[in-house]
Amino acid sequence: MSLISVGTMAFDAIETPFGKVDRITGGSALYVAYAASAFVKPVQQISVVGEDFPQEEMDELMKRGVQLDGVQIIKGQNSFFWSGRYHEDMNSRDTLVTDLNVLADFKPVVPESYQGAEFLMLGNLAPSTQMSVIKQLKQRPKFIVMDTMNFWMEIAMNDLEEVLKHVDMLLVNDAEARQLTGQFSLVKAARSILQMGPKYLIIKKGEHGALLFDKDSVFFAPALPLEDVFDPTGAGDTFAGGFMGHLARTGDISFENMKRGIIVGSAMASFCVEKFGPTRLKEISNADIANRIQVFKDLVSFEIELDLD
Amino acid sequence: MSLISVGTMAFDAIETPFGKVDRITGGSALYVAYAASAFVKPVQQISVVGEDFPQEEMDELMKRGVQLDGVQIIKGQNSFFWSGRYHEDMNSRDTLVTDLNVLADFKPVVPESYQGAEFLMLGNLAPSTQMSVIKQLKQRPKFIVMDTMNFWMEIAMNDLEEVLKHVDMLLVNDAEARQLTGQFSLVKAARSILQMGPKYLIIKKGEHGALLFDKDSVFFAPALPLEDVFDPTGAGDTFAGGFMGHLARTGDISFENMKRGIIVGSAMASFCVEKFGPTRLKEISNADIANRIQVFKDLVSFEIELDLD
Repeated sequence: MSLISVGTMAFDAIETPFGKVDRITGGSALYVAYAASAFVKPVQQISVVGEDFPQEEMDELMKRGVQLDGVQIIKGQNSFFWSGRYHEDMNSRDTLVTDLNVLADFKPVVPESYQGAEFLMLGNLAPSTQMSVIKQLKQRPKFIVMDTMNFWMEIAMNDLEEVLKHVDMLLVNDAEARQLTGQFSLVKAARSILQMGPKYLIIKKGEHGALLFDKDSVFFAPALPLEDVFDPTGAGDTFAGGFMGHLARTGDISFENMKRGIIVGSAMASFCVEKFGPTRLKEISNADIANRIQVFKDLVSFEIELDLD
Repeated sequence: MSLISVGTMAFDAIETPFGKVDRITGGSALYVAYAASAFVKPVQQISVVGEDFPQEEMDELMKRGVQLDGVQIIKGQNSFFWSGRYHEDMNSRDTLVTDLNVLADFKPVVPESYQGAEFLMLGNLAPSTQMSVIKQLKQRPKFIVMDTMNFWMEIAMNDLEEVLKHVDMLLVNDAEARQLTGQFSLVKAARSILQMGPKYLIIKKGEHGALLFDKDSVFFAPALPLEDVFDPTGAGDTFAGGFMGHLARTGDISFENMKRGIIVGSAMASFCVEKFGPTRLKEISNADIANRIQVFKDLVSFEIELDLD
């Protein structure tokens, strides 16, 4: 089944305790595409770049079954640029530069060839931009997931609440879930969010794993304990890409299959952080992915039958 | 099989965002005893209290198969007293008062009736005090676990390193593992600690669960996502008590059985935080424990067979 991925394709400058890189490709939709295309083809990309975005990156994506008909290339302008520096704990970072460039006037257009897609991943963008994609789809996808961030809660909360009514799942981090609901307890925050529209919620907790909620159930997947997190940039989007890639590959949106999707997403994210930017995602093989998923199984599996009487 | 538990029995004054209590029984060995005695009898307690420690608490413990021959009662003195206030996130707290009282001159004495115990839990005490217990045992227990804290790393590091050479497992929180090794990465910290003596290591991460390491393997258990953590006091000791109780009940110190022990400990800790002090631990039934363990199974279990080719 096909997956539409909407989001940014960009350049990043990244500094971590392990090193620094001045200009590497990035953006939410780039990470989603690399992760999801390991599981499903086509991934139908909707994004915008400037003239400066490298053709080799486009070629690499197409080679992996990523369709770029929905990626606008704006002549005479530059791609979105983000620069950040991570703190030693890697859970926090300072944003140094945000140059919107082509993103400032981004109006996504859904190509005719994308119509009928069963899965839609709305990366973090202005809620009105996310909404415009939903409205352009003639047939509602089987499953719509959206990401968002604190910024939109501050300046576009009404728009955000509107989009929430049209999606099946919200995928945010713990700080975002807390800010969206004003609840410190993630269990209470989850309950509030599930009353805003989505039937499902994933709360990403970075190195502490991820939680999946529906009205009745909760599932927890750990992050892999790693010797070093080299660069966390894109890990959340890679998680989303692996999750949606697995769902779209199987076409199964049961809670049980979402659990598997979270393990797949966690495995892909664990690769992402091993090198700068999307570098590692381009290197891994299917065997690497299968091995990593086995590591996750070993990490959490246990058998217990307790007879206390 | 029998379990010796060494540690404090005390009074606590606790303030959390949900309320406050001026005087409630506490101390590491009290929590260990309530948790472990749900699984194994006898729990052989070694501690010290003042004249003020309530006889009803002693009776309650004995009713549960906790032996108190090793608990010294010091006439004319008061029990150890700790007072603390938790921050909203419940992961950090301010200590307001620490009155050592009887703990200042505590010299544990192992009663003859405790000799031959197969399991030993050394709660957080001065390393030299922990060491004196090990030395008094005529036969080395099958499995020795120790807890410790940052304070001893600062003022008694040599003694601490000596005890580490005599135990099978260290059980600490993430901040303590980092301080002990100077490693930020918990995977690297684990490797360092496993070279200091213990063959096994548990790193407690509070609301983020716990990790079990040996030289070759790692296992992760989540904490239960709770609506409210009412009072975290004693959760780590309750975890230790559940873990050791399960090991002592089964007599099995394989890595597989330690995984089960961690789930049992996590389940007991999830009860502990539901009410002030040890209140909730005194209420729960075997059926409550069995149900809670099932909740943990449901929380993390998944089936995945991925065929990517």
